[in-house]
Amino acid sequence: MKVAKFGGTSVASAEQLKKVANIIKADPERKIIVVSAPGKRFKEDTKVTDLLIALGERALKGESTDEQLTAIINRYKDIAEDLNLSKEIVDEIAENLKELVNSDCSNKERFMDRLKASGEDNNAKLFANYLNSIGIAASYVNPKEAGIIVTDDPGNAQTLPETYENLKKLKDRKEVLVVPGFFGFSPEGNLVTFSRGGSDITGSILAAGVDAELYENFTDVDSVFVANPNIVENPKEIKELTYKEMRELSYAGFSVFHDEALIPAFRAGIPVCIKNTNNPSAPGTLIVAKRDYSKEPVAGIASDTGFCSIYVSKYLMNREIGFGRRLLQILEDEGISYEHMPSGIDDTSIILRENQLTPEKEERVLKRIKTELNVDTISIRHNQAVIMVVGEGMTSYIGISAKATAAFARAGVNIEMINQGSSEVSMMFAVAAEDAPKAVQALYNEFFANTKEQEMPLVLEMK
Amino acid sequence: MKVAKFGGTSVASAEQLKKVANIIKADPERKIIVVSAPGKRFKEDTKVTDLLIALGERALKGESTDEQLTAIINRYKDIAEDLNLSKEIVDEIAENLKELVNSDCSNKERFMDRLKASGEDNNAKLFANYLNSIGIAASYVNPKEAGIIVTDDPGNAQTLPETYENLKKLKDRKEVLVVPGFFGFSPEGNLVTFSRGGSDITGSILAAGVDAELYENFTDVDSVFVANPNIVENPKEIKELTYKEMRELSYAGFSVFHDEALIPAFRAGIPVCIKNTNNPSAPGTLIVAKRDYSKEPVAGIASDTGFCSIYVSKYLMNREIGFGRRLLQILEDEGISYEHMPSGIDDTSIILRENQLTPEKEERVLKRIKTELNVDTISIRHNQAVIMVVGEGMTSYIGISAKATAAFARAGVNIEMINQGSSEVSMMFAVAAEDAPKAVQALYNEFFANTKEQEMPLVLEMK
Repeated sequence: MKVAKFGGTSVASAEQLKKVANIIKADPERKIIVVSAPGKRFKEDTKVTDLLIALGERALKGESTDEQLTAIINRYKDIAEDLNLSKEIVDEIAENLKELVNSDCSNKERFMDRLKASGEDNNAKLFANYLNSIGIAASYVNPKEAGIIVTDDPGNAQTLPETYENLKKLKDRKEVLVVPGFFGFSPEGNLVTFSRGGSDITGSILAAGVDAELYENFTDVDSVFVANPNIVENPKEIKELTYKEMRELSYAGFSVFHDEALIPAFRAGIPVCIKNTNNPSAPGTLIVAKRDYSKEPVAGIASDTGFCSIYVSKYLMNREIGFGRRLLQILEDEGISYEHMPSGIDDTSIILRENQLTPEKEERVLKRIKTELNVDTISIRHNQAVIMVVGEGMTSYIGISAKATAAFARAGVNIEMINQGSSEVSMMFAVAAEDAPKAVQALYNEFFANTKEQEMPLVLEMK
Repeated sequence: MKVAKFGGTSVASAEQLKKVANIIKADPERKIIVVSAPGKRFKEDTKVTDLLIALGERALKGESTDEQLTAIINRYKDIAEDLNLSKEIVDEIAENLKELVNSDCSNKERFMDRLKASGEDNNAKLFANYLNSIGIAASYVNPKEAGIIVTDDPGNAQTLPETYENLKKLKDRKEVLVVPGFFGFSPEGNLVTFSRGGSDITGSILAAGVDAELYENFTDVDSVFVANPNIVENPKEIKELTYKEMRELSYAGFSVFHDEALIPAFRAGIPVCIKNTNNPSAPGTLIVAKRDYSKEPVAGIASDTGFCSIYVSKYLMNREIGFGRRLLQILEDEGISYEHMPSGIDDTSIILRENQLTPEKEERVLKRIKTELNVDTISIRHNQAVIMVVGEGMTSYIGISAKATAAFARAGVNIEMINQGSSEVSMMFAVAAEDAPKAVQALYNEFFANTKEQEMPLVLEMK
């Protein structure tokens, strides 16, 4: 049994839904289908979820909602007509939307959660109807019926353990089950949504609950690339990636996946395949617990900007028990999370995402560190990029760090900080943001492009 | 005006003290001389300080001390006779020692401090006597007279600020001043010793107090080497080193200097020169605030064993505000100081000196981390070495890390962890302890030996 989740662009139009139906037909193991709300059909289009948010906000202000309501109903109506479905399904969706928009809005968060979730919910009803119309036995399954029980935290629901027990019964169903993504129900029966992008979570929970052989995540790219295609021209595709590698890559700019979504599949040991609805014969990228590292010790190269680093020095710092802990305590007091803390003997740097600092907060944090820890010098460097070379296979080879650092040197890029823990799943390099594209290209050449550059001797270059 | 400090081997015998006198004669700027207690004259010899400790311990137990007392007095007597000094100076020393050993021992720490300090104190009296005997006007100056005022913390005295004001008056003295190292007096007038090796501290304080142009530290090596001569054959000598570089090097196995001793000179901006009493014409190693980095971006390579690393992983660790702080809090609770904390996204390693852990403490710490932080995996790796590539000039060159990591790869050494903060004074590499000598040799070849190895292309090698 496979669980297949289809993202917004995969279910945005009749044409796309036909492709999805063909994908289901092509493999009888695809028994549980998770759908998103209809996404963009073209670049300037508006996602149904965004239409629903606008509708909800107007309703809460007591403004007229006719225009928004019509726009949303028309999205479903267009799809239904193009798929030759009966008028009843559109009427049912229109009825449901009118009911929701006129429902009790005294609790604004719950009201908005119900409205937003209807994007996925009505799309699932419509798609189940379509499958039946073309002869594929299918049922719409509401998350309440499925048993997806979550914490009562609107917009950030966490799955409760009984969910997995509840989902087991779905294994006995013979027909294709179409489940709307993005939401569950609290133990008291309130509808609660996951964080945005949460249809991936629904798919992952279902895959874990029914112990699927595979969780397929259909999107609009053939696979994950080893480097950002906006930086590297025609980068290689990743065939296999481990969970850990995926997580390290998604941390630094690889946005293919809502990475918390992977947790249920990860814990249940279920492989995940990222595939393209528009090109389902492409093999896609398989995310697994273990892969054969011998061919590609490095899985990919990620980079992200928007980091800054605070540098602190104090003579005899390393003799001072508690220095690092008190430094982190100040950040914690200010609600700031840090990424890495590379250190020398008498100095330490703290790398963090700079969107956590306003100018006032930055001033306060630096002042607190200076006075409370009595440091000799403190400074902050903005506009840094973090580059991650990721690969669980790196641990099996000697010389990976030499190849990586050589690539930076050849590109003339100064490495400001390096951090490699003993897991060796990744090596972190901090560089000036403007140097990141050059560095990523050079690392790509070093690990994936088999150019002759690697054989040139290294000469030190004055900055 | 220069302050010159002479270590134990430099003042161990009449022959050595003659060399010291010649060094003083050779430069009239050498006005303040700090002496240690007589050290070893040959490999199996016993230092006077160790004889004094044995004497004190017997006295505290009420055992006979005649034998030890005679041995100590004979050390001074031998020196005095070989220097043709009058009998009075030996009698004065003998009298002093007998008085000390029979003094009030109700406070054991103070009793031991007084006895230990007499090693330096009596040597200073003897040496001042000798200088006068050969026509160099000299005075013995007791630290109380000089005004070295310290905290009342036996064996770990810290200099109090008024000391520097007090010492200024020494600038007006015309004769050579001979000051015993290793101790000062508390504001209440108690004799208190510095931590062991503390004669370096006395010299450093005096240099700062009289605003010396140079603090010369005479020992028994021509200079500091760029790498440990027990690992690398005939390593290059270091001509100039910055304070920061000295500190980073002394952290990891460079034991030429009692590194806290440098603080007063460091803060006062006084250069320090390490010279050889047995070869005073050799230029020695000069420790300065800034040096010309263009010739030697890397100052030296140090390594030290006896480290271990605790590895912790937890899915979504980096989302958890306070994780790092709580991890360090557990170590702090257990009185453990850590050296470095290189991290990935979902894992972190903590490098610490393994002599801080007993098997019971290790078990308790690992258990606390596992349960209190609810981590996925935790492990500890023993028997690691830390290798530091140190040089303030590294920050001015691109490619230093590439050359360093290439050296490890060529030596076939796996780098377990890397840590480079933004100061770039040093790069830290953790390796298995048995790999450290190979790695140090390879780094030496890379940065100091101009071999042809650097031009070989790097090939990945399976571990």
